[in-house]
Amino acid sequence: MTADWLNDLMPLLSKGALRETGETYLTEPRGTWRGSAGAVVAPEDTEEVARVIRFAGERGVPVVPWSGGTGLVGGQTMPDAAPILLSTERLNRIRGVYPSENVMVAEAGCILADVHSTAEEADRLFPLSLASEGTARIGGLLATNAGGVQVLRYGNARDLVLGIEAVLPSGEILHGLRRLRKDNTGYDLRNLLIGAEGTLGIITAAALRLFPRPAREGTAVLVVESPEAALKLLSHALPLGGVTAFELMSGQGMRFLQDTDVPVRLPFADVPEWSVLIDLGLGPEDDPTERLERLFIEGHEAGLVSDGVIASSEAQRRDLWAVRENIPEANKRIGAIVSNDIALPLSAVPDFIDGCGDRLRQVADLRINCFGHLGDGNLHYNLFPPEGRSKSDYADRAEDLRGIVDEEVALRGGSFSAEHGVGRLKVGILERYGDPAKLSAMRAIKAALDPKGIMNPGAVLRQN
Amino acid sequence: MTADWLNDLMPLLSKGALRETGETYLTEPRGTWRGSAGAVVAPEDTEEVARVIRFAGERGVPVVPWSGGTGLVGGQTMPDAAPILLSTERLNRIRGVYPSENVMVAEAGCILADVHSTAEEADRLFPLSLASEGTARIGGLLATNAGGVQVLRYGNARDLVLGIEAVLPSGEILHGLRRLRKDNTGYDLRNLLIGAEGTLGIITAAALRLFPRPAREGTAVLVVESPEAALKLLSHALPLGGVTAFELMSGQGMRFLQDTDVPVRLPFADVPEWSVLIDLGLGPEDDPTERLERLFIEGHEAGLVSDGVIASSEAQRRDLWAVRENIPEANKRIGAIVSNDIALPLSAVPDFIDGCGDRLRQVADLRINCFGHLGDGNLHYNLFPPEGRSKSDYADRAEDLRGIVDEEVALRGGSFSAEHGVGRLKVGILERYGDPAKLSAMRAIKAALDPKGIMNPGAVLRQN
Repeated sequence: MTADWLNDLMPLLSKGALRETGETYLTEPRGTWRGSAGAVVAPEDTEEVARVIRFAGERGVPVVPWSGGTGLVGGQTMPDAAPILLSTERLNRIRGVYPSENVMVAEAGCILADVHSTAEEADRLFPLSLASEGTARIGGLLATNAGGVQVLRYGNARDLVLGIEAVLPSGEILHGLRRLRKDNTGYDLRNLLIGAEGTLGIITAAALRLFPRPAREGTAVLVVESPEAALKLLSHALPLGGVTAFELMSGQGMRFLQDTDVPVRLPFADVPEWSVLIDLGLGPEDDPTERLERLFIEGHEAGLVSDGVIASSEAQRRDLWAVRENIPEANKRIGAIVSNDIALPLSAVPDFIDGCGDRLRQVADLRINCFGHLGDGNLHYNLFPPEGRSKSDYADRAEDLRGIVDEEVALRGGSFSAEHGVGRLKVGILERYGDPAKLSAMRAIKAALDPKGIMNPGAVLRQN
Repeated sequence: MTADWLNDLMPLLSKGALRETGETYLTEPRGTWRGSAGAVVAPEDTEEVARVIRFAGERGVPVVPWSGGTGLVGGQTMPDAAPILLSTERLNRIRGVYPSENVMVAEAGCILADVHSTAEEADRLFPLSLASEGTARIGGLLATNAGGVQVLRYGNARDLVLGIEAVLPSGEILHGLRRLRKDNTGYDLRNLLIGAEGTLGIITAAALRLFPRPAREGTAVLVVESPEAALKLLSHALPLGGVTAFELMSGQGMRFLQDTDVPVRLPFADVPEWSVLIDLGLGPEDDPTERLERLFIEGHEAGLVSDGVIASSEAQRRDLWAVRENIPEANKRIGAIVSNDIALPLSAVPDFIDGCGDRLRQVADLRINCFGHLGDGNLHYNLFPPEGRSKSDYADRAEDLRGIVDEEVALRGGSFSAEHGVGRLKVGILERYGDPAKLSAMRAIKAALDPKGIMNPGAVLRQN
């Protein structure tokens, strides 16, 4: 702790706000960067966040917001400076639950799983759902506009927020914690800060939308011939109502589960090349099994579905979901050369899977595991070495391979970052594929709201 | 047409782009302002819009975007200058319909009713629905983030857009017409321009979300004792699934319909003091009548509902909707002293209706018609003179009365503009009740993106 400003910052802090600069704050899940910090500060309330930001502005010290630390693109990790690492961990109060309004007001440091259980206690659902929910915190989830497995029905993080409180780079507090469904009173700063990855301010609390809990749920895995058949099946599934998830799984993913001994029960004796997991959440009078059977029959008659399993118990539901949810764990054990989080217009998905796969296989001997949130056009498209080789053998080719994927995505009007964000990893890709007018407007907004460039510098936009 | 710049603009325009400056372009529905125009220009494509904006920037000529002209807050009408009035009427192409993606790409000048019928031809629904749909155009609907009667289920205009194309004040074209459900690649300019009322650029086209058409629909009007009972009934209704609209109607509104001879069939012999219209849109196997009956019984047993009518035919559904939809016409015939478009946190609605009504009646002899989209917490709260007197008798008190309403709304964390926007009417109210940090950030963004202040000056923010 040699930061020359630390002695001046100390008197502004509450008791317990200065944390030990432990490893947790400096590493990130994929180990690509190691961050640095002049001090780790965990304010106890929004006023203290504002004091810290004003101090940072006066002294020109960068501030990196630190939430759950689960981000995959380095947005929470600044390697080349000694910033104030501002942790939201003590902003962890639920400020209010309003069941009759279907609203909860939660501070930025609340862990997603705790928000889930608080909603459940009020007989409500907060639908944002993803693998890191035991660690990820609301502030980071909003800063990155997180996605997950229920976007098809409930939308991204952005769609689950009615209002935010935030500290702007000026140190002013934005009091926008409104519990309103409709509010057309000026520019939409809420959505500007959501997804800005901490570069335009720090979200300190949010009014979150809650939903009725589905009374009855059902899950099926249906075998389809191709991604194209899966898409056609989606258009049969949506009119059923209540479709919460529509997830694509590849044979490669299931073989990885077998090969790596991840303890899951595969639903079919022979691994199907393509299958979809469909999840329904319905009202008390609706029968999910009956609807899934109907979908199976319709799909079969249309030549889209050749086999299927419909869960007949809650335990079977969990088993089917475990297959889907453990694919990332199997991937990790195999070791990916490149992981891609991409989105495509739905109708472009089959052509992308064919075209990009062909092109990659022409230049390298690869295994491709393509899976994910097909209902949203969001695929995790990960490249692996063939059996007997390791990702390190491909280290010098990884960037070229990623470049091919980005190019094939851009060609089809897709996005190189569906749900993970830009962070520090994809600043260059954004410069290359981003719309020039969008980039110049983003730079103008950044300069206008953060003229000293203190907020998470180098994330999303290159540092000047 | 004496604008000194017109001769220089002419060579940049396509054939037919210069329109006659007719009355339609200079008036607005409530007759509060009369606009002016140096020229009315209707570009035939986005490139031409960009040329006009660049010209305006070079010459410092204000540009007022003109869409369907149905806005109620003067956003489309600039009285004190001779701007370029830029009409989107020739940008009226449907660029693509993608039924398998549930997306339509429509230009800004498309009329909402035409978008509806194009969606219907593809067996899809575009759910934005409001009284002016035969005139309002997509660009204006997005610029004002329009609401309407199906927000409860499908969201505001903002929630129905995946991407936009726009011309920024710099004259650059923002190519953001992406058909993606997930796209975390930088700041959310889409939502910044949506709701900015043309002050940050002109939206020229949008990728709109489509939905499956409900296979079966049902409508009921249930009599409730109070707005509080109506809210409790809402929490019984939402878990039924498929609730499209939940509209509050007052006895005053129904008496106005009787008094003004608007040709509607009132559903009850005795006018109830409070009632709600509930609309369901369901799948092919669901029975809306059965669900509405269940809701009636539940509501009755809970002491919330005393009487009700469930439509048993499409003609009856239309009759029930006609009651709700004709209330504004009756209001117009009576003549409102003040009309308010407000939003409140749901749980604050009953207390607002009681408290604000009491306070107003203490200072003036009034009739209050409070009705609207209760499911969204959005009320139209309109004040009328007692029988035998006219709104002109109250002309000198109108602003004071409006001020009381705004104050009572602000006290309860509500919004003085739920769905109509700020326009030129509410600039002062926004300055008074808007969050100071929000206002300063808005001004910074406006200055950054539109440094010459050419885009719809004086709307939303006061002109410097």
